[in-house]
Amino acid sequence: MAAYRVVLVSPLYDGNVGAIARAMANFGLSELVMVNPCELTDEAFRRAKHAQYILENASIVSDFETAVSGCDLVVGTSGIVTSGQKNFTRIPESARGFADKMKSYTGKVALVFGPEDDGLSQHDLEHCDILVHIPSSDSYPVLNLSHAVSIITYEVFLAGNFEHNLSEATDEDKERLFEFFNCLLDSVNYPEFRKENTSTMFRRIIGRAVLTKWEFCTLVGVIADAHRIIEGKKPLPP
Amino acid sequence: MAAYRVVLVSPLYDGNVGAIARAMANFGLSELVMVNPCELTDEAFRRAKHAQYILENASIVSDFETAVSGCDLVVGTSGIVTSGQKNFTRIPESARGFADKMKSYTGKVALVFGPEDDGLSQHDLEHCDILVHIPSSDSYPVLNLSHAVSIITYEVFLAGNFEHNLSEATDEDKERLFEFFNCLLDSVNYPEFRKENTSTMFRRIIGRAVLTKWEFCTLVGVIADAHRIIEGKKPLPP
Repeated sequence: MAAYRVVLVSPLYDGNVGAIARAMANFGLSELVMVNPCELTDEAFRRAKHAQYILENASIVSDFETAVSGCDLVVGTSGIVTSGQKNFTRIPESARGFADKMKSYTGKVALVFGPEDDGLSQHDLEHCDILVHIPSSDSYPVLNLSHAVSIITYEVFLAGNFEHNLSEATDEDKERLFEFFNCLLDSVNYPEFRKENTSTMFRRIIGRAVLTKWEFCTLVGVIADAHRIIEGKKPLPP
Repeated sequence: MAAYRVVLVSPLYDGNVGAIARAMANFGLSELVMVNPCELTDEAFRRAKHAQYILENASIVSDFETAVSGCDLVVGTSGIVTSGQKNFTRIPESARGFADKMKSYTGKVALVFGPEDDGLSQHDLEHCDILVHIPSSDSYPVLNLSHAVSIITYEVFLAGNFEHNLSEATDEDKERLFEFFNCLLDSVNYPEFRKENTSTMFRRIIGRAVLTKWEFCTLVGVIADAHRIIEGKKPLPP
């Protein structure tokens, strides 16, 4: 079963933070990390009710990278779904589709939520492996932050009682794959202005597919071989 | 498709009522009836955000029977699940199981929620046709009222709507990608005995990720370029 950390990036209202702590406890989660949050007044503790221990044990950090460090899968959430396909950092998966995948996942997962007003920044989104979206009405799609956390944690709670059998790729495996993919882009003289976009697109595809360790290694093998041959080197022995 | 009315019995905190109005709008509902509610101050309207029209149009009544009149199905909600089977008024169905049934229901449904402290009374529960429960942690099962409304309305929203997909890749797009991937395996002199397995693995990964048309085309581009360069051909212009 996956282990979850909830990461709140710059939450503005501490009442929301309290309600989030309560929702986390309702759905069996306890690890909360906040990046530059608002001050937590009595209001946060009042709204946390019996989940005040989550606020007391929460970590406060100053940047996104620290907040997600140690997590094998970084999951961003977004209230806004792009209609175009090109801004793929904003092509999301539904909360339920994501939770289904988590049934067979055993790594550490960061569920990352942006501030109430603007959501996650482009910088933060680019560092996410998957983007998850809560389907909602077209006429008013933006949920209250604590409601969004509540629904996502409800979905992963429901998905949580399943056995797992495959060994997942670690953070390092993934970085190695992305690195080789970027090398491949270089070696095929991929247009510089499209490189970053395509690299992020690849990260998203791989994130959505939730690969096993074996799948990662196999894919790294093929891409690394292609890169080496193009660069005039021999492939490694199988 | 079913039509829904949200009924709040004696809500105590008007902030919650505002947050409920917002959640209703998020999930496409608009009809709100309250039985003897607390006073709605500015706090309710502030928290309703763009759903203030729901508060303005809400009906206030003095008893349960009036609140659910005109509804074909009265659905009570409860945070407490009985373990015995004898108090059948408290034997519930899960929110998701209930929402599944609503897929083929076309009547008018009242979703009834009790006050924050005690939930629905025995009298009110006895007047419900179904009791619905949100599965949650045994150690803290009682949700914030607006979160409970949010999750139930999310479930019925999902049951009533097919998720909209971005333009998905066609069968042909996919075959083209798999063909190019196989060509790449050939050009990196991939061991013959592993070729079929790796090709199938790649197909599975791509299948799980559910790519858009644009993502397919971009990925085909990179793989095809690598293949062409290895085979001594120039990449196509971007």
